[in-house]
Amino acid sequence: MAKRYFEDFRVGDAFEGGSMGVSQDAIIRFARDFDPQPFHLDPDAARKTVFGELVASGWHTAAMTMRLFATSEIEIVNGIIGVSVEQLSWPRPVRPGDRLTVRSEVLETRPSKSKPDRGILRVRVDTLNQDGAVVQSFICNLVVMRRG
Amino acid sequence: MAKRYFEDFRVGDAFEGGSMGVSQDAIIRFARDFDPQPFHLDPDAARKTVFGELVASGWHTAAMTMRLFATSEIEIVNGIIGVSVEQLSWPRPVRPGDRLTVRSEVLETRPSKSKPDRGILRVRVDTLNQDGAVVQSFICNLVVMRRG
Repeated sequence: MAKRYFEDFRVGDAFEGGSMGVSQDAIIRFARDFDPQPFHLDPDAARKTVFGELVASGWHTAAMTMRLFATSEIEIVNGIIGVSVEQLSWPRPVRPGDRLTVRSEVLETRPSKSKPDRGILRVRVDTLNQDGAVVQSFICNLVVMRRG
Repeated sequence: MAKRYFEDFRVGDAFEGGSMGVSQDAIIRFARDFDPQPFHLDPDAARKTVFGELVASGWHTAAMTMRLFATSEIEIVNGIIGVSVEQLSWPRPVRPGDRLTVRSEVLETRPSKSKPDRGILRVRVDTLNQDGAVVQSFICNLVVMRRG
């Protein structure tokens, strides 16, 4: 499929992608590298915390979301280049054994004022678990090249 | 040092932590796992992209920031538990050989309306490179337990 330029996007366009399983090992590995806190590192220690069980780091969920979003149907010609993110939230924890999918929707398209060869897409990106419950949501501003 | 409860924080309190070097290998490894795009995966392919060189995924910068923030002087009694993030931006790229540090500052403290045993800290978290330039910035809302 041909990749999309700025002009190819319309408000309301929605995209899906594959899914990604979340193992206990992957949660612990990410936590050791990037978020070494008891509720992300060790099932026993996690029981004595606010969460009461091992949960994935929110930044691990964000990273997995990026994988699913970057490899999704959205297919931007210059790749996914985010300049900023608004309203990032984690309404529910991600647990070992969960399987995540990502849905994105174009909220706004606007040509860049300073750079006439590109535009900005404002996109909502929701991450859902196997029960269809949202585990993460954000709105991002992506740079997309214009045609010609 | 005793860990801090909600009552121990004041607007304007600022915290620092250690530093973290960013190798080309680490950038590529994160990209393979979570953000498989040419400008994060391969120095040669990156030259033909908008960036013109290999740069770290913004979500890799976010993950490294979490490590530096979670192990910083802030020392919250229940750990760093973020419910949401606002205004996440990446004003400059992170490149191989960079060394990152994180500075955080309390912007607001407010008791939870629904849960009397906790409060919310609104905290700005800036990530700087070895030249003191901001490579990432966000504001997060953290849940912090109250005393007693």
